[in-house]
Amino acid sequence: MRESMSKFFSEKFSSLTPYTPGEQPKERKYVKLNTNELPFAPHPSVLAAVQGEAGKLQLYSDPENSRLIEMAAKTWGVKKTQLVATNGSDEILQFAFMAFCDKDHPIVFPDISYGFYEVFAQLHGIPYEKIPLREDFSVDYRDYVGVGKNVVIANPNAPTGLCLSVAEVEEIVKSNPDNVVVIDEAYVDFGGESCVPLIDKYDNLLVTQTFSKSRGLAGARLGLGFACEALIADIQTIRYSTNPYNVNRMTEAAGVAALEESDYFVNNVKSIMETRAYVKETLESWGFTVLDSKTNFLFAKTDEIDGGELYLKLKERGVLVRHFTGERIKQFNRITIGSKEEMDIFLTAVKDILKEKKS
Amino acid sequence: MRESMSKFFSEKFSSLTPYTPGEQPKERKYVKLNTNELPFAPHPSVLAAVQGEAGKLQLYSDPENSRLIEMAAKTWGVKKTQLVATNGSDEILQFAFMAFCDKDHPIVFPDISYGFYEVFAQLHGIPYEKIPLREDFSVDYRDYVGVGKNVVIANPNAPTGLCLSVAEVEEIVKSNPDNVVVIDEAYVDFGGESCVPLIDKYDNLLVTQTFSKSRGLAGARLGLGFACEALIADIQTIRYSTNPYNVNRMTEAAGVAALEESDYFVNNVKSIMETRAYVKETLESWGFTVLDSKTNFLFAKTDEIDGGELYLKLKERGVLVRHFTGERIKQFNRITIGSKEEMDIFLTAVKDILKEKKS
Repeated sequence: MRESMSKFFSEKFSSLTPYTPGEQPKERKYVKLNTNELPFAPHPSVLAAVQGEAGKLQLYSDPENSRLIEMAAKTWGVKKTQLVATNGSDEILQFAFMAFCDKDHPIVFPDISYGFYEVFAQLHGIPYEKIPLREDFSVDYRDYVGVGKNVVIANPNAPTGLCLSVAEVEEIVKSNPDNVVVIDEAYVDFGGESCVPLIDKYDNLLVTQTFSKSRGLAGARLGLGFACEALIADIQTIRYSTNPYNVNRMTEAAGVAALEESDYFVNNVKSIMETRAYVKETLESWGFTVLDSKTNFLFAKTDEIDGGELYLKLKERGVLVRHFTGERIKQFNRITIGSKEEMDIFLTAVKDILKEKKS
Repeated sequence: MRESMSKFFSEKFSSLTPYTPGEQPKERKYVKLNTNELPFAPHPSVLAAVQGEAGKLQLYSDPENSRLIEMAAKTWGVKKTQLVATNGSDEILQFAFMAFCDKDHPIVFPDISYGFYEVFAQLHGIPYEKIPLREDFSVDYRDYVGVGKNVVIANPNAPTGLCLSVAEVEEIVKSNPDNVVVIDEAYVDFGGESCVPLIDKYDNLLVTQTFSKSRGLAGARLGLGFACEALIADIQTIRYSTNPYNVNRMTEAAGVAALEESDYFVNNVKSIMETRAYVKETLESWGFTVLDSKTNFLFAKTDEIDGGELYLKLKERGVLVRHFTGERIKQFNRITIGSKEEMDIFLTAVKDILKEKKS
């Protein structure tokens, strides 16, 4: 807990540990492979769309985000009433914790996953349990079958990059009819299988996606929630009790334009997946253990050098990756897949560090 | 309460009534005087700043909002550690409810004020009490002196437009040393007195402002909180436990540019205040009761026509104002001050409606 609380800070937060975002250093230019951003600038039509809105900023945005919701419904083949847009997918995730969890409705999630799940549970006083990943870092879906509690799983998971199949998720959803299952698909476009088609079949499934990764709009903050109409209506109640203008004019316009440019999206994703395969092979050929990522990052370790040491030595060389200190994962680093050029800089740095280490 | 709750919606929200934003009609072009927007487009340098960010949208924004915080610190003459930026001032207000209120720390606010205070209290299970305005619709500061509970007051108040002096607010702050007093200054630039200078003197004062009104950036969503370092640190704990990228790249850039163009801001405010005086005088000359507004709206009624009826007849004529149905205020309408041209359209419509009514 923070040292510097005011005497006014509610005691219910006495053990709250806020989320730590990846470093956003300003003092030096890094090859930034630490926050899973896309290395490609937005399509020119995104720029044009944003520019078109900038002259109307004196006016509130549409609280219903009608243009975006309509375009998203078309893109994913769902009803408009099965959708909600939020200020990044962090917000839809938080809304889900608020709407469906409380003292009597705890939540479970993997022990190694997106750090915000635990923060949201703490923030809203929700009892929670962390279910350990298997030895191989995969989620064992059987741990969640009939668990009788609300569930949130990142699929693919972060920082491991590993995936459950839709059939496995369906077992979890089907076997917990009295609880809500949230599937966080932030990284799904890089090779995972989306569970959005299941929302027509189950009234207890909420799927979340983000425009921050595959859609290349991290700096615009846009997330989407997909669920049956009743769950979305509950989320809307929370949204209208929080910040009905949560998605601003520029972000809505950027989101619509990004969805319209589907070829650009497909090509970007393809490029990342190709570069990922290249980096994985290279690291493996040097003796690294690299998990089978379906995301835009790799989770990798080697016996040659301690994970924390590799992170620091890369940083010295101007390459930023993300290192977590949890016991089971502290030998790993999470490496965002950037452009081919960036990854070659990363690989050269790794090679140099390993050579230096041996000599 | 909504009819359509899912069976999963937490029971703690069974009596939650979400906020109702002003209408944002899409079916017809209105003279829109219902959501207190500025009638002037942003300065060209805001457009340029937004455009400059649009090409970098693949990258997350700076979670510390360093550029904006630095510019705001300079503008208001406070320390950077006395400031926090949020996704509209609704978000800083909600953070304050979360950080400082709980079951044992209730909050009080005027019975007629910004509707979100009650929503936030309900949403977070915070006991609250509404203190009636005086007969003349003003806040009696003595009702809050030594009240021994957290306090939130919009100053100037909405929808009345009336103000407390800084000396009166200081009495409230000074007499409640064990509670936090939140002063919501959304409208302060249109003739009110800001309490920001008091934050150096009191450790229990949080002042909030917005870029949605006088700064003309409603569609960008930007709010600021001002307080002593310890209160701001608490708010930061909540922010980093919620959505550390809450202010996106484009919004931050727009905010910085808007603060840099201080002449534009001063002239816009001056123009609104002149138009306000003109509309007030005109309505009064027709027998209206018009409260003494220090905001960019007027709160007005007449014995000639029912408030709800006037609202509807104006809407038929393409002029949208805001009507509230609360018992004490249902004869009034809240009329945003638009451009001189818009207000002449409004006044002509009112004149026609009254003439029609008499004939």
